[in-house]
Amino acid sequence: MVVELISVGTEILIGSIVNTNAAYLAEKCAALGLSCYHQSVVGDNRGRLEESVKVALNRSDIVILSGGLGPTEDDLTKDVVAQAMGLPMVEDAHSKERIQKYFDKIGAKDITSNNWRQAMIPEGSIVVDNHNGTAPGIIVEKDGKTAILLPGPPGEIRPMFERDIQVYLENLQELRFFSYMIKVTEIGESKAEMMIKDLIDKQTNPTIAPYAKIGEVHFRITTSAKNQEEATEIMRPTVEELFRRFGDKIFTTKEEETLEEVVVHLLEEKKYKIAAAESCTGGLFMGRLINVSGASNVVGESYITYSNEAKERLLGVSKETLEKHGAVSEETAMEMAIGAAKRAHADVGVGITGIAGPTGGTDEKPVGLIFIGCFIKGKTEVFRFQLRGNREKNRDNGVVKALTVLRQCLINGKE
Amino acid sequence: MVVELISVGTEILIGSIVNTNAAYLAEKCAALGLSCYHQSVVGDNRGRLEESVKVALNRSDIVILSGGLGPTEDDLTKDVVAQAMGLPMVEDAHSKERIQKYFDKIGAKDITSNNWRQAMIPEGSIVVDNHNGTAPGIIVEKDGKTAILLPGPPGEIRPMFERDIQVYLENLQELRFFSYMIKVTEIGESKAEMMIKDLIDKQTNPTIAPYAKIGEVHFRITTSAKNQEEATEIMRPTVEELFRRFGDKIFTTKEEETLEEVVVHLLEEKKYKIAAAESCTGGLFMGRLINVSGASNVVGESYITYSNEAKERLLGVSKETLEKHGAVSEETAMEMAIGAAKRAHADVGVGITGIAGPTGGTDEKPVGLIFIGCFIKGKTEVFRFQLRGNREKNRDNGVVKALTVLRQCLINGKE
Repeated sequence: MVVELISVGTEILIGSIVNTNAAYLAEKCAALGLSCYHQSVVGDNRGRLEESVKVALNRSDIVILSGGLGPTEDDLTKDVVAQAMGLPMVEDAHSKERIQKYFDKIGAKDITSNNWRQAMIPEGSIVVDNHNGTAPGIIVEKDGKTAILLPGPPGEIRPMFERDIQVYLENLQELRFFSYMIKVTEIGESKAEMMIKDLIDKQTNPTIAPYAKIGEVHFRITTSAKNQEEATEIMRPTVEELFRRFGDKIFTTKEEETLEEVVVHLLEEKKYKIAAAESCTGGLFMGRLINVSGASNVVGESYITYSNEAKERLLGVSKETLEKHGAVSEETAMEMAIGAAKRAHADVGVGITGIAGPTGGTDEKPVGLIFIGCFIKGKTEVFRFQLRGNREKNRDNGVVKALTVLRQCLINGKE
Repeated sequence: MVVELISVGTEILIGSIVNTNAAYLAEKCAALGLSCYHQSVVGDNRGRLEESVKVALNRSDIVILSGGLGPTEDDLTKDVVAQAMGLPMVEDAHSKERIQKYFDKIGAKDITSNNWRQAMIPEGSIVVDNHNGTAPGIIVEKDGKTAILLPGPPGEIRPMFERDIQVYLENLQELRFFSYMIKVTEIGESKAEMMIKDLIDKQTNPTIAPYAKIGEVHFRITTSAKNQEEATEIMRPTVEELFRRFGDKIFTTKEEETLEEVVVHLLEEKKYKIAAAESCTGGLFMGRLINVSGASNVVGESYITYSNEAKERLLGVSKETLEKHGAVSEETAMEMAIGAAKRAHADVGVGITGIAGPTGGTDEKPVGLIFIGCFIKGKTEVFRFQLRGNREKNRDNGVVKALTVLRQCLINGKE
């Protein structure tokens, strides 16, 4: 089936916000096996919105609209869809009650009459409760076409999609779609895609779609089948082939698992404590690790040592090393890693030092050069990378590289 | 004049990448005074792309297409635009030479014939050099309509737009547009918009457009005028009114300046060194400060103290304070700030402690509660915030709150 996305909101048209809803919905729809040929953005304008809805309903089976469901005059989506599909608007008692309850809960006294507009729906449509706001979602079915109207805020649309819309879309299709996620690190996007280009070129069922993230590439394998077992069988050869080609560069096959979660879990498994000494990344490495709930099991303290003095005083990096090899060197990264672990009484130490730019580069040590030292229970290893980006990108990439090499060191130590 | 954006690429349609180009171009076009009523995304499909281009050229004066200019068979944008506008494709000698030079520079030996497709252009069009890749930008003018074809990678499209396209678009219009940026912090998006709702409602010239960022709201004031002086005069009353209403909540009026840059410059001005003690933010506060090139003037070292033990041992927070008031308390935040400054021999110390969630909250101290202590040259102040988000959002917001209160303390100390 063919799905089409329409994002409603003048704030997207003037670039006031980035349209993350479209990317979110597009990926979800792809995973459900829906084909998407068009995405569009229209402002809060009745005529143009109606035109867009009509064109979309004409060429696609399902049209998902996000935004424009709120209580103000600007919020036109429901009215316009009802008109385009030839349906009158009626009041939905259930929605009215929910809105009343919502305002009671937050202790609002004067509910402006505008708010009741949110209880109006196109006749005969399905109301989808909004557990994170007042505007309900709405599904309108007519003449073999379906319009799905969802609220704009990401904090409302995502839980609503995952709780109710996903199941609805699954049931709408004769075939059921299943997907399998493989997340790869250590290999760049183009190289990773090249490594399986032959598979992608000849793909029919299952399909393989690459998703590039900073320092990671995710491959989603999707197939249609009667049930999970059949799907697993259909996908098995492809999954196995990807494992053969990427090996331990695959850090997870869990949809929601992040690289930092994998690292924290590896540390937890081994009952290791970790400390870092960060120079160019300046706290972002540990900041990301601590994004894992439960990081307190593996982190007690960590250090940002930006100046040479701090590297010496706090971590015990030797003056000689700093003078002879410089602050950005294999030797300093190593001593930082060891110093961090020692000072924090930790089992694992990570030292990160590099030239983030835009200044500070030389011919010998250009901008983007970064050294990462890993100390694990007495064993040390240092890694060197040459990154190519601006200051912000080099620092973000440095964090991913550090997570990646730390994971590799922790896995290798296992064997 | 009316502009329309078409993003070309199947990777956007399946949600593989977020369409940041559209937001970037939309904001730039808005600042140039161009009206944008439609944005769309189409895949690498000849028929659908041609249909989209025709519709767009029909209803808009200028169509900006991004993506699909590369060397592969999938890259159809130029061909399709030429066909839609009824122009033959011809080889551009200048582009051919530049591509040859590019490959010479990176030392490529075998240039596949595909690459020369990038030197083909619709007859009579203007070639815009790409200084960050091989595919040139192209401007096609015909029958009062203009199509602007830009490369997809953000690292290519942005410098090309700022270097050449912006000037071209300015010259295309009879009127010239000027804008003035006001960046506000400490006030939430809806409150900030409410504070100037009367101005926004009655706006004609200049216009005011709000742009919501994490913990910040940016207002872009735009007007058309003959020159900068006239524009400044037209915008003056609005600018002055916004200054009256937002006062020192305005942290900058410079287009490119960030909140962390403002803070670093305030510290530099006063010749202060800063250190932080971070618990829930776990390094993200200092990580963001160090994103400012030249942060080394104000930062030597900083601490992530996640465990109570670290708070005691590294910062000298008293056992009594931790036992009596808890790790997330005004008292602990204060002692962390003082301890960080002392330990680093810094003038300024910032202590951040909170409950990021999802676990660890109580009735008395719920998830999202955060305390920020500021120590500046012997003076201390503590701030309490109740944030409402998931773990990641609470941590990001905590960083912005810390930057905001630190800025406020540094400014107040000035008087």
